[in-house]
Amino acid sequence: MAFPVIGMVGGGQLARMTHEAGIPLGIRFRLLSDTPQDSAAQVVNDVVVGDYRDLDTLRAFARGCDVITFDHEHVPTEHLRALEAEGVKVRPGPDALVHAQDKGVMRARLTEIGVPCPRHRIVADPADVARFAAEGAAGEGDAPGGDGWPVVLKTVRGGYDGKGVWVVRSAAEAAEPFRAGVPVLAEEKVDFVRELAANVVRSPHGQAVAYPVVESVQVDGVCDTVIAPAPDLPGELSGQAQRLALTVARELDVTGHLAVELFQTRDGRILVNELAMRPHNSGHWTQDGAVTSQFANHLRAVLDLPLGDPRPRAPWTVMVNVLGGDYPDMYQGYPHCMARDPQLKIHMYGKDVKPGRKVGHVNTYGDDLADVRERAAHAAAYLRGTITE
Amino acid sequence: MAFPVIGMVGGGQLARMTHEAGIPLGIRFRLLSDTPQDSAAQVVNDVVVGDYRDLDTLRAFARGCDVITFDHEHVPTEHLRALEAEGVKVRPGPDALVHAQDKGVMRARLTEIGVPCPRHRIVADPADVARFAAEGAAGEGDAPGGDGWPVVLKTVRGGYDGKGVWVVRSAAEAAEPFRAGVPVLAEEKVDFVRELAANVVRSPHGQAVAYPVVESVQVDGVCDTVIAPAPDLPGELSGQAQRLALTVARELDVTGHLAVELFQTRDGRILVNELAMRPHNSGHWTQDGAVTSQFANHLRAVLDLPLGDPRPRAPWTVMVNVLGGDYPDMYQGYPHCMARDPQLKIHMYGKDVKPGRKVGHVNTYGDDLADVRERAAHAAAYLRGTITE
Repeated sequence: MAFPVIGMVGGGQLARMTHEAGIPLGIRFRLLSDTPQDSAAQVVNDVVVGDYRDLDTLRAFARGCDVITFDHEHVPTEHLRALEAEGVKVRPGPDALVHAQDKGVMRARLTEIGVPCPRHRIVADPADVARFAAEGAAGEGDAPGGDGWPVVLKTVRGGYDGKGVWVVRSAAEAAEPFRAGVPVLAEEKVDFVRELAANVVRSPHGQAVAYPVVESVQVDGVCDTVIAPAPDLPGELSGQAQRLALTVARELDVTGHLAVELFQTRDGRILVNELAMRPHNSGHWTQDGAVTSQFANHLRAVLDLPLGDPRPRAPWTVMVNVLGGDYPDMYQGYPHCMARDPQLKIHMYGKDVKPGRKVGHVNTYGDDLADVRERAAHAAAYLRGTITE
Repeated sequence: MAFPVIGMVGGGQLARMTHEAGIPLGIRFRLLSDTPQDSAAQVVNDVVVGDYRDLDTLRAFARGCDVITFDHEHVPTEHLRALEAEGVKVRPGPDALVHAQDKGVMRARLTEIGVPCPRHRIVADPADVARFAAEGAAGEGDAPGGDGWPVVLKTVRGGYDGKGVWVVRSAAEAAEPFRAGVPVLAEEKVDFVRELAANVVRSPHGQAVAYPVVESVQVDGVCDTVIAPAPDLPGELSGQAQRLALTVARELDVTGHLAVELFQTRDGRILVNELAMRPHNSGHWTQDGAVTSQFANHLRAVLDLPLGDPRPRAPWTVMVNVLGGDYPDMYQGYPHCMARDPQLKIHMYGKDVKPGRKVGHVNTYGDDLADVRERAAHAAAYLRGTITE
């Protein structure tokens, strides 16, 4: 049997949903998981429990695989370079992945290739943050108030879901980010009307597909709702966003799914916020709303197979995240949600409920955006326990 | 965590695809498999290898589950009755399932509830078969030629995919079926214009959904192509078929998916051919062509959850089976098939290729039936090795 073995590093929900997409392809799926109870470990047959930070563990894991890919971006770049040097197919490769792992490297490269970013630079200490703010007051930029504050500070490595990001209004507030001992990137706080995501998938031989540009609504720094396609987005801006994402994928030689998170500014420009080189929360809607899901296309790209059609199957698709709330039991909401909406698509991750933790999402689709949004929002809130009828 | 544990007896592709549908529901899936390499065993985490014909094995397996269901219909009825008596939730229950396991019992019950069947009766030996033929010559029936031959003979238990079925033209040809030592059912050979399937899903509390009636094309006794919905099927006949299937589900107290295979006669009547109480080949199109797949709805029913919308998502959906041919390697056809049709949906089962064995299927959907059929037929033939470009 010549079906390839995909090695997935990381056992979170992205791995779980990638395995789900891989089942119909008949490919074999091998998982490197932190624990046997991880989201993906619960549903995969071939599970290796081990530490992805250990090179020998990675080596042994990769030995049974035709290609390895990732559920997260925390595998040390130097380990991936070592594996690649030893002949392991790593997709996306470390030279691409470093741009999703290190925000400083990402900003430098994007600027190099002419992709619009917020004003930014690495800052050394709180006094330097104040200088950065002043540079913004003097020159161009979107900072409201015109004095260059607030400033967004990010550790260049390690942040996700709002962690490792601070919004500060003075040098006095700027001390904490530097305590991690990791370089800190300062960025202007963009006066955006909304956040978008332009996601693409690219394969090793250069084929790429672009998904419809979506609107992404964050609550407390975490993705809450995604609307596909982004409502009232001028065709020119949508095309610009997709071309930008395809350019980034090509210039960085990305293999697999690339999520490009964007700001749409008040004056109608788009700026790159962040990159992720893996399936992404902003693409979960594709599981039910697109011809080919981000997970299926990520697998095809990693296997160097022709990519699937990224087009939508419905006029509107909405995803709302289900975060842990007061109820430990997500299952008890099923009868209500399923009876209320026979078209609801529930995606649970098998994770223990902790307040604010991503434990699942719901997708809805249809012709009427208000209705599609309401159905998804209601179901997510009900499952979470925020509403009880 | 209050997510239920579904115990699936049998590790074939139906179990594999049911697990695939269960992943997003967050439910836990436990498999009783003949071997560790079975289709479903390759993709499930919690696998028990054991013999479903052994009651103690079934008992131990069921102990870890909230409900058990089936990939096939071969679990001995008496074992299921024993489990039910011991408090195990068996869905569908043995009293329903026996009608899918024993064609004699099925025919008797359907006749009792007034559901149209081909002329039939149990026959004792070849001479009795000749008498059955004569009964058909004398009275009503669709037998061409008017002498009551040919006659279809079926062992009441054990047949599938054309096995255990004989079409005989004389008493002399009728010896073989009786050698199995199992009761033999004789049926008139129906002069049908085509075969249909009216599939429904029913839950323990009586809710039921009916899928669009499909056309099913058999080649050499095995399902080859399914077209959803059946083209040019008068609304009245379609409604009749769906109502018939819902009636059977209710009268037999079926829980889960019920496939009702039908003949559409030359004079516009529908007759029941066979029943299956599990997800079925005639319903694979639903994975990509319906709002809720047969697998997802079977799970909901077995868990007594509200059922999902069974309506189609596309005007036409076609499934073509991929049978083993001369190529041992199904994967090598992927680049061609995926490049030719970016909307193609491949579903492979992870099974070793043997000539004529069901190793997967492809689904296509769209607005133009001829195009949708051509795309699916081409892909299946290419993967099988029947064509090479």
